[in-house]
Amino acid sequence: MAKINKITLNRYRNFKSYEIAFNEKNNIIYGSNGSGKTNILESISLLGKGRGFRNSSIEDLIYKNENEFLVESEIEKDFDNHNIKIYSKLTNNKYKKISSVNNEVSKEASVFLEQTLSFLYFLPEMERLFVSSPSYRRNFIDKLIFSENKNYNKLMNKYKKNLTERNKILQLNNFDSNWISAIENEIAISGLEIYRLRNEKIEILNNELLNLNKLTFYPFSVKFEHKDIFYKNNIDKSEYLKNLKNFRNIDSQYGGTKIGPHKSDFLAKINSEISASKLSTGQQKTLVLITIYAQCKHLINQKNIKPILLFDEICSHLDETNRKILLELSKGFDIQFFFTGTEKSLFSFMSTNTNFYNISNI
Amino acid sequence: MAKINKITLNRYRNFKSYEIAFNEKNNIIYGSNGSGKTNILESISLLGKGRGFRNSSIEDLIYKNENEFLVESEIEKDFDNHNIKIYSKLTNNKYKKISSVNNEVSKEASVFLEQTLSFLYFLPEMERLFVSSPSYRRNFIDKLIFSENKNYNKLMNKYKKNLTERNKILQLNNFDSNWISAIENEIAISGLEIYRLRNEKIEILNNELLNLNKLTFYPFSVKFEHKDIFYKNNIDKSEYLKNLKNFRNIDSQYGGTKIGPHKSDFLAKINSEISASKLSTGQQKTLVLITIYAQCKHLINQKNIKPILLFDEICSHLDETNRKILLELSKGFDIQFFFTGTEKSLFSFMSTNTNFYNISNI
Repeated sequence: MAKINKITLNRYRNFKSYEIAFNEKNNIIYGSNGSGKTNILESISLLGKGRGFRNSSIEDLIYKNENEFLVESEIEKDFDNHNIKIYSKLTNNKYKKISSVNNEVSKEASVFLEQTLSFLYFLPEMERLFVSSPSYRRNFIDKLIFSENKNYNKLMNKYKKNLTERNKILQLNNFDSNWISAIENEIAISGLEIYRLRNEKIEILNNELLNLNKLTFYPFSVKFEHKDIFYKNNIDKSEYLKNLKNFRNIDSQYGGTKIGPHKSDFLAKINSEISASKLSTGQQKTLVLITIYAQCKHLINQKNIKPILLFDEICSHLDETNRKILLELSKGFDIQFFFTGTEKSLFSFMSTNTNFYNISNI
Repeated sequence: MAKINKITLNRYRNFKSYEIAFNEKNNIIYGSNGSGKTNILESISLLGKGRGFRNSSIEDLIYKNENEFLVESEIEKDFDNHNIKIYSKLTNNKYKKISSVNNEVSKEASVFLEQTLSFLYFLPEMERLFVSSPSYRRNFIDKLIFSENKNYNKLMNKYKKNLTERNKILQLNNFDSNWISAIENEIAISGLEIYRLRNEKIEILNNELLNLNKLTFYPFSVKFEHKDIFYKNNIDKSEYLKNLKNFRNIDSQYGGTKIGPHKSDFLAKINSEISASKLSTGQQKTLVLITIYAQCKHLINQKNIKPILLFDEICSHLDETNRKILLELSKGFDIQFFFTGTEKSLFSFMSTNTNFYNISNI
């Protein structure tokens, strides 16, 4: 895996032009509200697939009154440096994001980036994971799976495409039963695979969380649970198909598919007793961050993947004890970290192998 | 209006038994994550109507393995002290919240509390006001209206009840057109009143925000806008009724009412140019807090109401400048404030007329 040596922002968000060289371990970006801390982390996340960790429109990435942006980066992999350019391109009045590796735009370049970089990140909105909607929690688990399985997005897209197709067919007055059976077959295959991957992820997270709990002397034990009305027992494809068939009538009126992994939820239990949603704001935030560390540990030890961690505003809402637990944890990992915060002092004890960047008045 | 002299918590949330005497001006409750800071603010909010600012179930308010809670408070109004008790009562397996004033439980006691206490509050989830759903923003505006107009909840409930009634009627195969016309008449009357009150509130907020902007030298100007597909121009009742009638067919299929104040949204523009949702986390939080101060100013100066302010975790995510602007603002108000935070140092310059409570190890 790679690390990021530097990044140059051109006509990107609030930066007309800005260059920043990074430490191989800890990078702490601090400054006042609105100075652009999150924007810098986002520019790093743009090196991955998609439109960055905020999933913003390309237009929003472009500096005011400009027509394009360019984020240039140098990444180091196996002692080689590579030049990565991420920029916007306007075609037929629509913006696209283009990635080049050593000035080459190709399928191979994209695959190289996919295989070279993996990101884990925390954004302030994730503080509300345990009190948010089920779709938010599904998405959280899915992103963790994606960090180690770059085909997972394809699987999810295929599954969703077939659900939409099934809904369309059910709205027809007379439909070909072979046609819908074929679609339902596809749904069952990818649905079962999504269930399997998510269950596997939950199990792995729970094991890693148990280890972290011992390591950090964190007072809570946390255990995730998969909640799904349909997937109560281990179901096979024939059972899945039978259920889809039985639900056709209801689904046609309801305009959707009642069963499947798009309806799952994920809960977290604390000390085998209370729901994580009952904890305080700061405690909930700590749990989300520890879960991300759990996935980080799994990636490094089991998958031989060194992720890059983008931690936006992890100190706010946390008391000194939790802040220290979470920042201390970073010391045990030989990977590159990017933190943001309003004040340098929050990170003051992280002195070795750490760069500080004050971006308040650039 | 009144101030709160002290509060005693019995078998409430994480407090087996705890008493706390308050300062008439600033009260700063600090301590580690999960120590119960928000629970104390919530216990104060229970003195108002309903189940407190988190709208929790009564069961959740009761200390683990206990059957009831009691929050006792002494409030001072016009040099008289009053004893207020808020407690749970189990009737037919259902918990109710009971309020007594000087040991009297009556309609008069409730009215006394309603007329004596008004709360404004900030909770961490409100940080996401501008990027949350329209219903969240409607709710925010509605709570501000409620802080000065205790009949507003009744109006809202009446409106919603009639909407539900209309939906039910539309699901019938043959309905009496006099019946639906009567319901729609009720909907139009209360709908127009809600529109009027909300527009009035937006106008008042915008004026107060303009004043605060001059006062605090805050670099942004903020202006709220009412966004509603139906209420573009000033509509009258006949126009409203005509539209409801025209929409009956669509609404019957859709299972709801397409037009009305339950569909409105509220946006905020910064410097007449960009949407508040584009600002950074800290900047958005500052704007929400300034808006609450704007309502506070209006209540004191125009309505002769002295609200009690419950500000949960207002310092997190804020840089020093914004923190100072917001805490300094409190000095200008002759009302009672309750703040929480993980550290005392965040509030250190607020020394006069301030009590600090460390609740970490009680």
